[in-house]
Amino acid sequence: MAELVGNCLIGQSGGPTAVINASVAGIVAEALNHECIEEVYGSLNGVLGLLGEDFVDLAAESQQAIRGLRFTPGAALGSCRSKLKKPAEFERVLEVFKAHNIRYYFHVGDADSQENAAKIAELAAAQSYDLRVIGVPKTIENDMPATDHCPGYGSAIKYIGATVKELALDAEAIGQSDLVTLVEVMGRNTGWLAAGSSLAKRRDHPNDPPHLVYLPEVPFTNEKFLDDVRRVLKREKHCVVVVGEGLVDKDGNYVAVETSSNDAAGHTSLGGVGELLKDLVEQQLSVKARVARLGITQRSAAHLSSKTDADEAFLVGQAAVKAAVNGETAKLVTLVRGDGELYTCETGLSNLSDVVGNVKRLPKEWINEDGISLNFQFFRYATPLIQGEVTVPYDNGLPAYAKLARENVDKTLPGFEG
Amino acid sequence: MAELVGNCLIGQSGGPTAVINASVAGIVAEALNHECIEEVYGSLNGVLGLLGEDFVDLAAESQQAIRGLRFTPGAALGSCRSKLKKPAEFERVLEVFKAHNIRYYFHVGDADSQENAAKIAELAAAQSYDLRVIGVPKTIENDMPATDHCPGYGSAIKYIGATVKELALDAEAIGQSDLVTLVEVMGRNTGWLAAGSSLAKRRDHPNDPPHLVYLPEVPFTNEKFLDDVRRVLKREKHCVVVVGEGLVDKDGNYVAVETSSNDAAGHTSLGGVGELLKDLVEQQLSVKARVARLGITQRSAAHLSSKTDADEAFLVGQAAVKAAVNGETAKLVTLVRGDGELYTCETGLSNLSDVVGNVKRLPKEWINEDGISLNFQFFRYATPLIQGEVTVPYDNGLPAYAKLARENVDKTLPGFEG
Repeated sequence: MAELVGNCLIGQSGGPTAVINASVAGIVAEALNHECIEEVYGSLNGVLGLLGEDFVDLAAESQQAIRGLRFTPGAALGSCRSKLKKPAEFERVLEVFKAHNIRYYFHVGDADSQENAAKIAELAAAQSYDLRVIGVPKTIENDMPATDHCPGYGSAIKYIGATVKELALDAEAIGQSDLVTLVEVMGRNTGWLAAGSSLAKRRDHPNDPPHLVYLPEVPFTNEKFLDDVRRVLKREKHCVVVVGEGLVDKDGNYVAVETSSNDAAGHTSLGGVGELLKDLVEQQLSVKARVARLGITQRSAAHLSSKTDADEAFLVGQAAVKAAVNGETAKLVTLVRGDGELYTCETGLSNLSDVVGNVKRLPKEWINEDGISLNFQFFRYATPLIQGEVTVPYDNGLPAYAKLARENVDKTLPGFEG
Repeated sequence: MAELVGNCLIGQSGGPTAVINASVAGIVAEALNHECIEEVYGSLNGVLGLLGEDFVDLAAESQQAIRGLRFTPGAALGSCRSKLKKPAEFERVLEVFKAHNIRYYFHVGDADSQENAAKIAELAAAQSYDLRVIGVPKTIENDMPATDHCPGYGSAIKYIGATVKELALDAEAIGQSDLVTLVEVMGRNTGWLAAGSSLAKRRDHPNDPPHLVYLPEVPFTNEKFLDDVRRVLKREKHCVVVVGEGLVDKDGNYVAVETSSNDAAGHTSLGGVGELLKDLVEQQLSVKARVARLGITQRSAAHLSSKTDADEAFLVGQAAVKAAVNGETAKLVTLVRGDGELYTCETGLSNLSDVVGNVKRLPKEWINEDGISLNFQFFRYATPLIQGEVTVPYDNGLPAYAKLARENVDKTLPGFEG
């Protein structure tokens, strides 16, 4: 295979995670190892930067800043929820790539956004423009197919697990009378995040909080929910309930949908299921209930990242560069779990086309028959993903997160009139 | 002064904090140093334990468990929001104290709940029952008078500051179009917690997030709020707003009050101001807004406690025992800040009667004229309180918090029919 010499470009897309920047750090660190990669650019705000030719020079960043990305939440290059749609937009991207001799494009994003990466690779091939496109997985929701688990998930459930533990201690402290604590977590279509809260239970203590976990995989009914809560309140002085925002009823309709939404991708805005169940509990059971809606903190609480997760996020970034330099294109880097008793994990590759449009669901056989708890298969799967703590430096009492200098790359093309 | 030999009892009251258990640890550790203190008991669920004679033997707990209390959130002895009111209840408490030869009573609670401690001390004196009652301050709200600051506050604002920093990075990442992030924090009557979010700003970077901080001390108007947000959105790509739940309008009425409430102390349930301002922003400015309501996590996120705060919480516990052994009673332990340039802090004593019913407000002269930011006096005050991180042990990926064995003390009296 002929060596491909040129510049590389990194783009981030979709909702940030605690470790998406760690993947960028992995790409930058590895890119600098390969002489065939000349410049290392970042696209600002994902596809918006691709269209607008808004690039920054990542090789000009300090070592400190790149190292700092390994524990900095958010998306250091900026993200976006827009997707390329029109043929003219894809043509523009290729034009921009050619203008900057971009030969390596790394797209850090969820399954949905990898569609753009796949199409860019396709168009480049059709135009015989030698370009290597590698997708790097990220999402706290863990719903990307092809990969055993997804960078971002481990840190999210470490945060959720720790927070549920802390909220349960608070509830226990003031729970001398009946008290229901509802914790609403993200999860549009799958219960991966809600399930992760079960890690707060000690081994062999199934009655530990969270007492009830409601997953989008199990159709929700008010009657069963109220029965479940009643049963726990008979046994315990308080009840901790974790609910996924994407809970659905028997007919597959979301239990709670919020109205106001300007989501560019046209998603309905989920959420509010916690408040809804709070009202239900207070009205039907006449006990006090309170809601903790973890919201955006689930994907940004990098001060409590999983070291395993952060390291794997860095690893998939490195692996993306190695794959591209080795001639791969239109591939997604995946995480492949070893078969042994002890957890091991290495990277693999999957076709981007196998990923786009597919969702990895929480296996139904990991959910107990009661519909509100997970069995040992889930614990065996998820426990290794939250191991280890990231050492975040503190400055004056608060986490010292990295900030890129963002030295602009000169534009060479006229502006794009989409 | 004659040595007073007998048993000691500890009670916790009000909403838990990240460090209220550290104060209990301080009391237990110090009590074991004094031979005049024979047994060390804990009252379960505050005044409920006093009435019900529900005591546990804290000297029987392992060293590990007591040490673990230094970083365990919640209230290890259980708390409650009830207050003693009827004379018969106070009589009962004295009866229970006499039955167990309680000669030292330590009440860890906020200003409101110290009223009970004061009255118990008064009644004991009236009955010539030799009892020493010392109040130990706790509240995340920092509104206790007499003390420079209150244990619980430093950890709460460290968590709030770090979370605002993380949420701001998330917002910046996806804020390629206008985006308003509203962070709702606690604070029934004072802006101490909301003000603490300003610590997320770097020194000499007044334009850092949080861009706007709304305090209960400054009457709120929709017009000014919308003007403020417009101004920030002209300057920045996104706007981070911190709002205290206790925001009031020109007439002193809460801006947002929630309806359903079973609060035993008869407080109205505050909250929802974030959602209210979200609707306002979306309707009036046609920009996307989102709410992070930090809720109970503010007082329970012990994994991110301030070491300064946790150490001071332990210190006030120790100081309470020393004061009692030295013959003091009806006093509150306070924190007294040194006059020097470098932060130092020691304990003092105040009369319980000076504390009850009083609120320490955020000084108006610490708020800038713009009404939405704090000046150097606040930073000088608050910055030392969040310094240092507590080393929480992790077990299997999650914080390993302590759990007391709670060995019951035998009851000797018939039950109380209140």
